[in-house]
Amino acid sequence: MMVFQKQKKRGKFSIVSQSGTMTSHLFFDPDNLDIGLGKAISVGNEANIDIVDFLEYFKHDNETEIIGLYIEEIKRGKRFIELAHEITPKKPIIAIYSGGSEAGNRAIKSHTGSMAGNSKIFDAMVKETGIIQTNYIEEFLDLAVILSKIKGIYPKGNRIGIITNSGGPGAMLAKNAEIKGLKVPEFSKSLQKKLKTLLAPTASYKNPIDCTFDMNLNNFYVSFPKILMRSGEVDVIIIYGTIGFHYFLSRYQNDEKISPYIEFRNEALERIGLDDLDKFFIVPTIKASQRFGIPVIYINPQNFMSPWSKKIRENGGIVFKLWDRPINCMAKICKYAEYRKEHL
Amino acid sequence: MMVFQKQKKRGKFSIVSQSGTMTSHLFFDPDNLDIGLGKAISVGNEANIDIVDFLEYFKHDNETEIIGLYIEEIKRGKRFIELAHEITPKKPIIAIYSGGSEAGNRAIKSHTGSMAGNSKIFDAMVKETGIIQTNYIEEFLDLAVILSKIKGIYPKGNRIGIITNSGGPGAMLAKNAEIKGLKVPEFSKSLQKKLKTLLAPTASYKNPIDCTFDMNLNNFYVSFPKILMRSGEVDVIIIYGTIGFHYFLSRYQNDEKISPYIEFRNEALERIGLDDLDKFFIVPTIKASQRFGIPVIYINPQNFMSPWSKKIRENGGIVFKLWDRPINCMAKICKYAEYRKEHL
Repeated sequence: MMVFQKQKKRGKFSIVSQSGTMTSHLFFDPDNLDIGLGKAISVGNEANIDIVDFLEYFKHDNETEIIGLYIEEIKRGKRFIELAHEITPKKPIIAIYSGGSEAGNRAIKSHTGSMAGNSKIFDAMVKETGIIQTNYIEEFLDLAVILSKIKGIYPKGNRIGIITNSGGPGAMLAKNAEIKGLKVPEFSKSLQKKLKTLLAPTASYKNPIDCTFDMNLNNFYVSFPKILMRSGEVDVIIIYGTIGFHYFLSRYQNDEKISPYIEFRNEALERIGLDDLDKFFIVPTIKASQRFGIPVIYINPQNFMSPWSKKIRENGGIVFKLWDRPINCMAKICKYAEYRKEHL
Repeated sequence: MMVFQKQKKRGKFSIVSQSGTMTSHLFFDPDNLDIGLGKAISVGNEANIDIVDFLEYFKHDNETEIIGLYIEEIKRGKRFIELAHEITPKKPIIAIYSGGSEAGNRAIKSHTGSMAGNSKIFDAMVKETGIIQTNYIEEFLDLAVILSKIKGIYPKGNRIGIITNSGGPGAMLAKNAEIKGLKVPEFSKSLQKKLKTLLAPTASYKNPIDCTFDMNLNNFYVSFPKILMRSGEVDVIIIYGTIGFHYFLSRYQNDEKISPYIEFRNEALERIGLDDLDKFFIVPTIKASQRFGIPVIYINPQNFMSPWSKKIRENGGIVFKLWDRPINCMAKICKYAEYRKEHL
């Protein structure tokens, strides 16, 4: 049994796992993850203590709000199901199960000596108990990040509002959301009318909102998200193109052709200064997100550790480098939110 | 039209795209990508020049070995299909198509004014012409990385050999590979026998090879991959747990309990020195990989920019932080390799 604690700030995501890697290796690089890890317990081959014991413990643990499981075999199936039923309406459980395939079962037998089993039975059990299941380690971590950062704000439905400054990502995002069972509703005529007055003539406003490279940062970061939140027409907002000013400004502020344009559209930038930009562009939106109960996801294709991504993350924002993974997660979280609403 | 050149070393992956983002935003952070970008061309709404023109150009371009496409609409369908037929047996084409869903088509209409279309027709065309298709931007980039780095070494089949120092990732990896249609064959009795003599008693040797935390680095990095290559029983090798020595050694070399163990198993480490370790553990394996025509993928859960990941990458190795994405890509690359073999 190993308790892992190396990170800047302890969080409320706790793991119990039949593999030590899931509680250690994955967290070698906590700076590049936004997971606040709480407790991470490797039960190995469960010689004397098992996953069910820790589900019982996490159920009552005030320091645990989200539970992650890596499962090769569940020894006490009945009690596991009972506990999962009790826990999931209050605390989400994310589970990876590596049994159920031929080579997977062979590996498991060598690893923990478990008999593994049938993935159809596992899948049915997961569905019935509201567990969020994934086969993918990266998705397991992504789900933990998003669930940690939304802080109990679960989407009320599965309608996605897309704000983008580039048409291609908007189109790909919309398609992927639909493939994953989310809705990207066309906005109502009145909402479209309101958006149109604020956008450049080349922009679009039906959903996705494609601002094009308009550079009206206040619209992009604050007004549009807030308008969507107030509209009641979306349950989750995803913003593509939240690219760092630090890069642009240092590059362009001395460029005679470009700098007047930037200043004209965003006189505020000059006045505020780079280090305080997040107070104007990020904090109000995240506060509104909490007030309206509508999660917001930021996509910045720059490095996760780039200055602007760090600013957004430090303010509690959810940041991904690309859009597919958070969309996949949101589809699962929306389903879980529905289950939660029904069973709370 | 924009040609993008900001990176340390120009490569042979060229893009033609109906979205500028696919040729610019995505490459803000070239240090964190192993893509050698060649030419990146945004044709926008194709007012005067289209994707087909550039397929024609890339077909004959000696500086282009892999082609990436972002497609909202193909205006000259017949010629596109002819060209794809001619190109794919020689140069792989990776394509994302954002049409075919309701919101996707709405977004496209606003973006390039294209009519988009039906994804079933597109999917059928892709299959017939040997294009590698993906809906996911991250997979598009991952495919480009892997295809760039294997340098024309295409797997001869779809049998995966797994080497790991942790049981959980081995089991998850095996399951995912099977889900994606790859094979994780149980090794022949004679191969198992050979491996068994080299492994710790707690290890397993059926596929996955789970070395456990044995720390015999020469076996893990060199001997086992080479034994698998020689066996003729696998077409691709994936190695989980290629974690940096830099981290461990600096931490443990002064620890009286641990350091004698490390020295005992790996006296070589002391002799060689950290900066030359790759010459012993990485270079021979990558050379063998080219000789045997068997791609090797390294998984290091540490940051992509961590010293050891950088060492592997600089020697031409393919490095991912987690295993799902390269497995998904390998499934597609194995299918492409089969098509290529039939049509070359």
